[in-house]
Amino acid sequence: MVLITALCYSKPVTGQDVFQEQRNGWLQEAEKSQPKLMESTKEPVSLVSIEQDEKAFQHWKAVRTLPVDSLYHRSFKKQSGVVADFGEHLTGFFTFSVEAFGRAADAPLRLKFTFGEVPSELATPFDPYPGGLSRAWLQDEIVTVSDVPAVITIPRRVAFRYVKIELLGSSVYSDFRISQITFKATTSVNTTPSPLEASTDKMVADIDRISLVTLKECMQTVYEDGPKRDRRLWIGDLYLESLANMYSFKNYDLTKHCLYLLAGLSYENGVAPSNVFERPSPHPQINPLFDYALIYNVAVKEYLQATGDRQTATDLWPIVKKQLEVPKKYLGKDGMLDYERANKEWWLFFDWRVGLDKQAALQGVVIWAYKNTYELAKMLGKEKEVAELPDLIKKMTAATHKNLYDKTTGVFVSGKDRQVSYASQAWMVLSGVATKAEGAKALRKLPAMQNVVYPGAPYLYHYVIEAMIQCDMKKEARDLVVDYWGGMVTKGADTFWEVYDPKDDFLSPYKFFPVNSYCHAWSCTPVYFIRKYPEIFQH
Amino acid sequence: MVLITALCYSKPVTGQDVFQEQRNGWLQEAEKSQPKLMESTKEPVSLVSIEQDEKAFQHWKAVRTLPVDSLYHRSFKKQSGVVADFGEHLTGFFTFSVEAFGRAADAPLRLKFTFGEVPSELATPFDPYPGGLSRAWLQDEIVTVSDVPAVITIPRRVAFRYVKIELLGSSVYSDFRISQITFKATTSVNTTPSPLEASTDKMVADIDRISLVTLKECMQTVYEDGPKRDRRLWIGDLYLESLANMYSFKNYDLTKHCLYLLAGLSYENGVAPSNVFERPSPHPQINPLFDYALIYNVAVKEYLQATGDRQTATDLWPIVKKQLEVPKKYLGKDGMLDYERANKEWWLFFDWRVGLDKQAALQGVVIWAYKNTYELAKMLGKEKEVAELPDLIKKMTAATHKNLYDKTTGVFVSGKDRQVSYASQAWMVLSGVATKAEGAKALRKLPAMQNVVYPGAPYLYHYVIEAMIQCDMKKEARDLVVDYWGGMVTKGADTFWEVYDPKDDFLSPYKFFPVNSYCHAWSCTPVYFIRKYPEIFQH
Repeated sequence: MVLITALCYSKPVTGQDVFQEQRNGWLQEAEKSQPKLMESTKEPVSLVSIEQDEKAFQHWKAVRTLPVDSLYHRSFKKQSGVVADFGEHLTGFFTFSVEAFGRAADAPLRLKFTFGEVPSELATPFDPYPGGLSRAWLQDEIVTVSDVPAVITIPRRVAFRYVKIELLGSSVYSDFRISQITFKATTSVNTTPSPLEASTDKMVADIDRISLVTLKECMQTVYEDGPKRDRRLWIGDLYLESLANMYSFKNYDLTKHCLYLLAGLSYENGVAPSNVFERPSPHPQINPLFDYALIYNVAVKEYLQATGDRQTATDLWPIVKKQLEVPKKYLGKDGMLDYERANKEWWLFFDWRVGLDKQAALQGVVIWAYKNTYELAKMLGKEKEVAELPDLIKKMTAATHKNLYDKTTGVFVSGKDRQVSYASQAWMVLSGVATKAEGAKALRKLPAMQNVVYPGAPYLYHYVIEAMIQCDMKKEARDLVVDYWGGMVTKGADTFWEVYDPKDDFLSPYKFFPVNSYCHAWSCTPVYFIRKYPEIFQH
Repeated sequence: MVLITALCYSKPVTGQDVFQEQRNGWLQEAEKSQPKLMESTKEPVSLVSIEQDEKAFQHWKAVRTLPVDSLYHRSFKKQSGVVADFGEHLTGFFTFSVEAFGRAADAPLRLKFTFGEVPSELATPFDPYPGGLSRAWLQDEIVTVSDVPAVITIPRRVAFRYVKIELLGSSVYSDFRISQITFKATTSVNTTPSPLEASTDKMVADIDRISLVTLKECMQTVYEDGPKRDRRLWIGDLYLESLANMYSFKNYDLTKHCLYLLAGLSYENGVAPSNVFERPSPHPQINPLFDYALIYNVAVKEYLQATGDRQTATDLWPIVKKQLEVPKKYLGKDGMLDYERANKEWWLFFDWRVGLDKQAALQGVVIWAYKNTYELAKMLGKEKEVAELPDLIKKMTAATHKNLYDKTTGVFVSGKDRQVSYASQAWMVLSGVATKAEGAKALRKLPAMQNVVYPGAPYLYHYVIEAMIQCDMKKEARDLVVDYWGGMVTKGADTFWEVYDPKDDFLSPYKFFPVNSYCHAWSCTPVYFIRKYPEIFQH
């Protein structure tokens, strides 16, 4: 997730640093809980040709051709453009060896490596680059090999399944071969989750398997949003990944590390940073995000609930409390937030969908976060410090229901134009503004209604499915998982994608589909649903 | 020098290895005499713009614009395409630093660096590449910077004066600057030669200065032919460089190292390898070259004469003796070599000029090398081992004079078509086939004759000038140096070029002038002439 408003970006946080003293302590704890990366050496499983096929995802498919040995034992000059398939999505560092073939090399070589998560990345010209994000995200690297033989590791970390190798320069007087390619794959996953019930439907099992790979690939030294792009820790992705991790790999040290890192890099005014970079040294992006700040609190609560690690939760309590202040400035006496002003002063995310009115979601996320924070306070014996929360929640809940529930249609509306969206219904359910019955009724009405704003990315699908389950819409929840993620499975996904519109393989918020991330944290949540609710999914 | 005949290349040397036992010893000595590289840190002296100018060399010139600080203190986004000038030719490793400018970087950067020895390399598109040599010789490197800030050293060694920096990818949401660029320059030169006589003409002094830089840049861990291309040790370049070194930097360890390396990497049949690679581990190119094998002997003799290092010369004597056998197979009873057959079975070089008949040069180089080897034998007290040489020299000299001297015209001719060339006259003089008077007469006649084959590269100019000096043609020798190398000086050379035709700035044996080497060992010989013959040049 990288789109940000110019407004937020140009508003660096200044003034007194509220956590000046604690911050170093939090960063030290983050350092202590730095997860160890597991390394494994991988080799390609086959050579493939990338072929056009109108029926394939994005119209390109990989077809197995020759065994990898055929690459190694022939002159590379006749193989320029070859594609090697590692058979699985991998994240890490690529190494290749070149040797003279017959005659000593008398000139350097110029080789181009293009790494692709999906076949289309190897078949779509990158230049002239039409995309909205940095061209440098695309994974093509040109390497000069000054001396032969050589073993060269490309310095850049890549995330891919396929690599295309092209020859851009060599001597006509000598020849060479690529004698070996290997990959050092990394992840901080160090456990194998238990198998699903034997009765689990094949498609659900496939979705679970691919979700696990997606999560595993995103679990590096932080919960990354995507190992290809943007390779950083966002609170929104962290929250979903840590939920999925609880029900799979159980690497709680990684969660702890990320929670401390976010606290240690909080803005001067105490707001939890929407996202942080760990490299080259930890630093936040100055890009405050309203809903993510609140979600931080829920992530801490979930962590405590899963681990019982009171020490960490207590240590982080000051920053949790600080997030409660984010909405206060916008809260009217009537229990409604000043959405217009908040929307002007903050980046509100919730979903990618352009045109989504976020008033209802905003009311929902605040109530939901307040409730979760109060639960956390009780677990830590600190409810007196937030004694105002129960009344506040009650007041906001009532006001929201009163203002946003349309009794006539039975759905929740948002904004001046009384927009109807999945986002609004989901957040009304999760916050408890909607009763189970109201929520179920609203969610069931949407498919038949006109002008409903649908989810624009897997991130929001998570909240919709969670809402359905809370409303006992078990079949609908399961169907949505199977329809939406199953659609990616049917299209050949090895990992779940950042962006997926069943009707448009080429959709990209960045104006160039090859720069989309095809292994994206926020798409891994089926593993959470499938394993948390076996009665719904594993039968 | 990289052109080779397919014939030579496809004829790997096999059979019994005549130096099986000695070779390791020679390589060990080469290892012991490995010169230490001197490192110095350089910074650019100015920003420049590369501007079109019909009067400039290759129609491009560098014009100073802003101080280097202006690069460092502004966003790089607005400076893409900037060219930094280091003010001198350098060889080594380039390092740059990037830092965030205002906002933390949220995406990787893609930067392209193009290194040029001459301005045209920065202004001529490299692709689609029309050249005959590896495209990888061209010094453009694309670097992905994954994290900002970063300090990155480009792994490839480069040789250049100017570097162009282009931005190929960055985030629109953040900004950055290039905060520093530095260069670690290397050479094995560790002395400063004495100044020229104060009376020396400015142009001669300029030629001397630029020759010294050229030589210094080519003196790395071997005498390279060119630090940009081909970065390897050829016997022909070694010979000229070691002569120039004797009269300037006096790094005799480097000469010793190279002579041992060539011996240690001699072909199985004992022929000295035309050229060798030191990296990644020492190995020869299997590409036997007749005249270079013989020149090896002369280089050993000159080394002994300059240093008195009898131990090395004695140690190398077996390989020197072996080179004497190279011509024998082609030598007729009449004292003439079977040129047709030798030309079919070997690569004969002497000069780049297409169409040059090499019969006379071949006779000349053999007699010259035999004479020098006999002198070497006498210095080592080994003349009995080569007792046949004096008669052989006498016989060949007489036969050559009889067959190739055209008394009518007063010039030496070569081949069936009785071709007249500078190469032939030069080698007839150096070999002593021509008397001083004959040589001077012949060399003086050439400018007025029709169909004379002129030198095609600086390498042959060396032998022509040496021949002139031997014939007491002092003024002509001086004029030739001043005209030919002075032409490069006038055109703005920082170092002397591999290829120089006063009438054609774009001449390239490789079909693409940017791939020419613009700092080339065999063009450094004026320093030898100017300093060995002060009475001719330093007044």
